[in-house]
Amino acid sequence: MRAMSFELRDRDLLGRIGRLRTKSGTVETPAFMPVVNPVSQAIPPRRMMEEFGCDILITNAYIFRKHFGDMLDLEIHRFLDYNGVVATDSGAYQILVYGEVEASQEEIIEFQKRMGSDIAVILDIPTGWDVPRSKVEWTVEETLRRAEAAIPLIEGDEALWVGPVQGGTHLDLVERSAKAIASMPYQIHALGSPTEVMESYRFPILVDMIMVAKRNLPPERPLHLFGAGHPMVFSLAIALGCDMFDSAAYALYARDGRYLTPHGTKRLKSLSYLPCSCPVCRRRDAEELRGMLKGERVRLLSEHNLHVTMSEIDTVKQAIAEGALWELMEDRCRGHPALASALRGLYKYRDDLERGSPSYKGRGLFFFDSGCLARPEITRHIKRLEEQYLPSVTKGKLLLILAPERRPFNKAQQYARLKRNMEEGLDQASRDFHVCFYAPPFGVIPIELAETYPLSQFETAEPLDRETLEFASDSVARYVAKSSHKEVVIYSGKGTLDVLVESKCREACQEKGKELSVVSDLKPWGSEAMERLVNALRG
Amino acid sequence: MRAMSFELRDRDLLGRIGRLRTKSGTVETPAFMPVVNPVSQAIPPRRMMEEFGCDILITNAYIFRKHFGDMLDLEIHRFLDYNGVVATDSGAYQILVYGEVEASQEEIIEFQKRMGSDIAVILDIPTGWDVPRSKVEWTVEETLRRAEAAIPLIEGDEALWVGPVQGGTHLDLVERSAKAIASMPYQIHALGSPTEVMESYRFPILVDMIMVAKRNLPPERPLHLFGAGHPMVFSLAIALGCDMFDSAAYALYARDGRYLTPHGTKRLKSLSYLPCSCPVCRRRDAEELRGMLKGERVRLLSEHNLHVTMSEIDTVKQAIAEGALWELMEDRCRGHPALASALRGLYKYRDDLERGSPSYKGRGLFFFDSGCLARPEITRHIKRLEEQYLPSVTKGKLLLILAPERRPFNKAQQYARLKRNMEEGLDQASRDFHVCFYAPPFGVIPIELAETYPLSQFETAEPLDRETLEFASDSVARYVAKSSHKEVVIYSGKGTLDVLVESKCREACQEKGKELSVVSDLKPWGSEAMERLVNALRG
Repeated sequence: MRAMSFELRDRDLLGRIGRLRTKSGTVETPAFMPVVNPVSQAIPPRRMMEEFGCDILITNAYIFRKHFGDMLDLEIHRFLDYNGVVATDSGAYQILVYGEVEASQEEIIEFQKRMGSDIAVILDIPTGWDVPRSKVEWTVEETLRRAEAAIPLIEGDEALWVGPVQGGTHLDLVERSAKAIASMPYQIHALGSPTEVMESYRFPILVDMIMVAKRNLPPERPLHLFGAGHPMVFSLAIALGCDMFDSAAYALYARDGRYLTPHGTKRLKSLSYLPCSCPVCRRRDAEELRGMLKGERVRLLSEHNLHVTMSEIDTVKQAIAEGALWELMEDRCRGHPALASALRGLYKYRDDLERGSPSYKGRGLFFFDSGCLARPEITRHIKRLEEQYLPSVTKGKLLLILAPERRPFNKAQQYARLKRNMEEGLDQASRDFHVCFYAPPFGVIPIELAETYPLSQFETAEPLDRETLEFASDSVARYVAKSSHKEVVIYSGKGTLDVLVESKCREACQEKGKELSVVSDLKPWGSEAMERLVNALRG
Repeated sequence: MRAMSFELRDRDLLGRIGRLRTKSGTVETPAFMPVVNPVSQAIPPRRMMEEFGCDILITNAYIFRKHFGDMLDLEIHRFLDYNGVVATDSGAYQILVYGEVEASQEEIIEFQKRMGSDIAVILDIPTGWDVPRSKVEWTVEETLRRAEAAIPLIEGDEALWVGPVQGGTHLDLVERSAKAIASMPYQIHALGSPTEVMESYRFPILVDMIMVAKRNLPPERPLHLFGAGHPMVFSLAIALGCDMFDSAAYALYARDGRYLTPHGTKRLKSLSYLPCSCPVCRRRDAEELRGMLKGERVRLLSEHNLHVTMSEIDTVKQAIAEGALWELMEDRCRGHPALASALRGLYKYRDDLERGSPSYKGRGLFFFDSGCLARPEITRHIKRLEEQYLPSVTKGKLLLILAPERRPFNKAQQYARLKRNMEEGLDQASRDFHVCFYAPPFGVIPIELAETYPLSQFETAEPLDRETLEFASDSVARYVAKSSHKEVVIYSGKGTLDVLVESKCREACQEKGKELSVVSDLKPWGSEAMERLVNALRG
């Protein structure tokens, strides 16, 4: 086995852009590896690289051995006429389908070494789908035994070797599997058996599977999601930390008349128009494509599917580079309610997402609804407020002001007028208060932070959903409860958020024995309301 | 003017696919018309047709006249070397920019006739942006005067003539303008001045402008949205009934280094990857494109922008054909919070959207959150329930059952068991009840309708937002209040929706003097709960 050679270049959420060095060259991740069938191939590997940008592909060592095992001088790059990086699978998929294969792990490992694979896999036992727990346990343990047994066989080999994680949808077994394989000297890990989970649209459990594996594997090794090739799942899987994908879907779907899009699958026969900008779709229309002879149609459909797949990888990479992976993932998760449900389930992983994400990408935050509450920017603000910021405040009163219409709030005209009013109407002693704004989704925004990212740069859809307003007002009330101030003044409007903030803060103040006064007005930025506030602060 | 020749082929929401016959051929709508600058053009018109599928383009008659007005034998198709449909603008845009133009309406109309335009516009006065109301009124009235004055000049002409609607963001003036022009014999209408509204991201007001125009214009005439060329607004504008778009954005943005996507605009200089599958982006990478000489770079960027624009039109058409325009629009409206706000504003136009939409497209409904409550399928269900269905029910009691997990509800195993229990445990007299399921977002689903579209075919994201649950429970309570039953039995779980349904129905029953009993259980599909229901019905 080669020494580890995976270098991270950029990240967003748990997604990352990395460079993986292999003996045949360096590959940038996240990477999609099209499965190349050594026996019949719609798009020749050389074209894959030149026209589709595929720097890496994967083929099946087991099938290869069956058909061409007798060839002397077998070298996979030469055989495929391809000078990129070649990964090989071991036949584990065939075990899943046929129950067993006609080769031992030793033979398969030896063959992968002989054919010159750049990335190779041990002969693991896929967990599969809908099998009894005892069987799942066996696949996990047997895979680990084989991984252990493989170590002496691959020691010193030039290829990068993959140590798979099994366990299917049994999360405790995925954890056991990941922890054990993590301690072995593999350079890449892979999560097995997501295909059926994806095909049955059980995306919430897919998220859990990936997260359990991710939490228990060394972050410095790439994670390959076996058999995932639909562009609609890339952004989600990458956001959770997957780095590599392989699939024959682009070709298999084409044979079956299925047309990939970044939001799902369509049937060519039901297309009146080609909703895509790829070279295949721009040069002809749906009727033309449908009317072709099968061979030509399948070839073109494979090309379309591969274009869409590869450009989705670039789209995800660009999103990582600009810090917009969350937004891309949200967009793709509108492709199906099950994906949207998976997205909502990310809230329980918000701390993982926050830890993985860089703190500033120079880009305003778009907030749409409570589905966005798991965003790292929000988790980080809440944490900073409650863990670091709160204890340092010393002013007499806490003055909570509803957020003005423009950002940054401390520079908004509406606040400037209020400030002038307070300065003119109050003596030094009555001016002893700490101003905090409140706004969804962040909750409390202390005035000193109003010009920091992302508090000065966010836009929200209107009206926001109830869950977001509850989240923001809960956060305000928690801040009020924890703060050292004995007196709290709220200056608010009459909207839903204002009412929630007022009632929750009232409860918090009662519980903590704090004094609360509220100045609320239908026109909070009018002179009358401002005057009332000045009087309240003076009193 | 030619006789009307606009034929509708398909529709979804207020969007439609149509065929517009002109003297140079038929164009399918929705159609995007790239603005071709007669003086300098990055992509030659012939290539636009052959490689980009542009069957129609638009050029500016005023600029044309200024530069080439002296040419004898001027014929626009020959001049442009283009055998598609050519529309011309009149110079109104130049009025907007420079305040006036050096030509009279008579001259411009005469020139458009002479150059052989297929679609031509009178010399209207654009309202513009941020102008006092008195000026807005003048643009509306002067445009109407000119439209009236133009009629004798264009009578009998072979071209299709466009009658513009002005008024900007003053909705009452848009209404006045639309109503007046609707009574004149124009074959196409256009809505003026949306460009600044779009550039300042005021999409909610754009929706209102379009809807006011649409409501007051003859539906059988195409509606052109002047100067709209960003692919991110197409699905929304088309869903509201716009049929034609024109813009030079594809070229202007390219000159400025801006890269269009269906979700917004990116700067080429900030792109690390090209997030697109078009022929320009698949054949090179971001660095390569940035490194080119300016002329070549602008040309390729224009090509990319035009590919994305044209393929978005095909994407929208495909969505109309398969009845998925709502979902596409939702997706695109995730591009910016202001677009998302505009989408939420569609709720007030739900009756218009419902009237425009065909009732069945054979496709399951995807429901994500309360933003989807304006969907025609939901409006139609609520209407049908309250207007047509309710009075025909005669059974003794109303039995409201929480929806089982699988659809159709009446065929679900969970319900089948409950039914068996009720059949075995109740005598004929106690079986006199009408079963209705309740489920978000639809509210009440009478058992007889459970297998009809879309009640048998919808999927929801989980968990749903509070607004959706409120909507559904309100609808249940309204149904309970209106029904002829004197006794109501609710069979429910303990979830948020169950609690809402119970409390709202309790209120409705009290008000209407109905008897209510509730059987609610943490495990509503368990034997114990079923037994309790049977007892309640027996009693």
